Amino acid sequence: MHESIKGFRAVIEIPVAWGDMDAAQHVNNTVYLRYGETSRIEFLRACGIDFDIKGSGVILGEINCKYIFPLTFPDKVWVGTRAMLETIDSHSFWTEQIIVSQMHNRISAILKAKLVYYDFVQLKKSLLTDQIINNLHHFEDQL
Amino acid sequence: MHESIKGFRAVIEIPVAWGDMDAAQHVNNTVYLRYGETSRIEFLRACGIDFDIKGSGVILGEINCKYIFPLTFPDKVWVGTRAMLETIDSHSFWTEQIIVSQMHNRISAILKAKLVYYDFVQLKKSLLTDQIINNLHHFEDQL
Amino acid sequence: MHESIKGFRAVIEIPVAWGDMDAAQHVNNTVYLRYGETSRIEFLRACGIDFDIKGSGVILGEINCKYIFPLTFPDKVWVGTRAMLETIDSHSFWTEQIIVSQMHNRISAILKAKLVYYDFVQLKKSLLTDQIINNLHHFEDQL
Amino acid sequence: MHESIKGFRAVIEIPVAWGDMDAAQHVNNTVYLRYGETSRIEFLRACGIDFDIKGSGVILGEINCKYIFPLTFPDKVWVGTRAMLETIDSHSFWTEQIIVSQMHNRISAILKAKLVYYDFVQLKKSLLTDQIINNLHHFEDQL
Repeated sequence: MHESIKGFRAVIEIPVAWGDMDAAQHVNNTVYLRYGETSRIEFLRACGIDFDIKGSGVILGEINCKYIFPLTFPDKVWVGTRAMLETIDSHSFWTEQIIVSQMHNRISAILKAKLVYYDFVQLKKSLLTDQIINNLHHFEDQL
Repeated sequence: MHESIKGFRAVIEIPVAWGDMDAAQHVNNTVYLRYGETSRIEFLRACGIDFDIKGSGVILGEINCKYIFPLTFPDKVWVGTRAMLETIDSHSFWTEQIIVSQMHNRISAILKAKLVYYDFVQLKKSLLTDQIINNLHHFEDQL
Repeated sequence: MHESIKGFRAVIEIPVAWGDMDAAQHVNNTVYLRYGETSRIEFLRACGIDFDIKGSGVILGEINCKYIFPLTFPDKVWVGTRAMLETIDSHSFWTEQIIVSQMHNRISAILKAKLVYYDFVQLKKSLLTDQIINNLHHFEDQL
Repeated sequence: MHESIKGFRAVIEIPVAWGDMDAAQHVNNTVYLRYGETSRIEFLRACGIDFDIKGSGVILGEINCKYIFPLTFPDKVWVGTRAMLETIDSHSFWTEQIIVSQMHNRISAILKAKLVYYDFVQLKKSLLTDQIINNLHHFEDQL
């Protein structure tokens, strides 16, 4: 596994699908966000933030993706997520994620995402609980 | 049409599909990038940058998306693109895009994307031609 | 509009997105089902079958798609749906759908789908109400 | 691994992504075709049918999917493919595929697809070579 993935949690392996490529014969730009979402959901579940449409969960406030080199089929990627602890505020925090090509043993993309804790019943942002904040710290301090 | 769309070109109308929503019953975060891609392709074609896998085209170097409020089905969106002329350098430039909900008459998301001119045969970035740069200026000056 | 679309209801226009194409530079096979889903949802809403995750809706029991000629970007499609009245039974019915390329003025694909009325609370199939059956008949008899 | 997968080749494991679900909180109907496509591509590569846009490959002529029970996140699926040898004719053959939920140890969907050998340069169907037909037979006879 690529050295840099060690700083990340909720590392998952995703096979690149042939159908992830577009007419430019590269993995389509939207698919990198799907890969990131999949690791992010794992990360959030591990932090005790399960998605519950009848309760609360997180929604995306902002996302940034740097495309470093284009993925192609066939390949497998490692995708990992870490909380950027210094960004935690009352309702939100940022995560950083990397997508690593196994075939090239190289970082293909870096994502940063602002996650907003959200109440799906009242349809408004919600306060991050102490337990979630503790979990985020605990998760990162283990590394 | 929402006032703010007037500053943008290649404005297209896209119907939100039921299937664009995810389990949170909002349009999935990746779909905003798909909407942006669709307007961007129109914009590039209008600027004389057609995609040609046996020649050249643009690839995404970086993308940023601010999610302002969540889209839902049923709705239609306007999506527009403009070149940020001050960012043009030898091989790349940034575009700004907005996605406007027709139902809410409100901006749902703002995207910024770095586009890199790319040679699909030699697999490396390529110089922006004078004609493309002129077209980008001409396109924006018309507004 | 292509002659054959006249036998169909809930006809919608969908712009083919560049990103709907895959590495074969045709619209990907899964996207035809997305186009069909979008018209089907319109059709069901018009028949009074709204999707409600806290109540009932329809789920797909089976789908068949004949790909007649490959769609490409740029194009727009018409997609229409009709109920196959002779297939209505206690819990399900079939729809037929066509996808027509505007650029080629030609049918690109024909879909048939078995729709099962489903109770999302009890997680089991549900009886079609008389009102729904009447609506399906009324809808088709108008043609 | 589920007993029934033993009759299939090119068996791959795919993690169900949270984003594969739609607003009904089930994996969307189009995603089953994506899963099938991914195993089919593996199968074709193993049979010596590589996709080459400057040469030949296969395109889908028809697809049928029976949805047996709905997949949800989190889960992983096994997807396998077999050629239906009795359907081989001069230009096409059918495959059968199953999608098995690991969590439920149960078949979630069965797909049948007609694959047409296609010349991407001349844009017309192409004769299946003896080598491909031999490979299809050899592949199935090994089971």
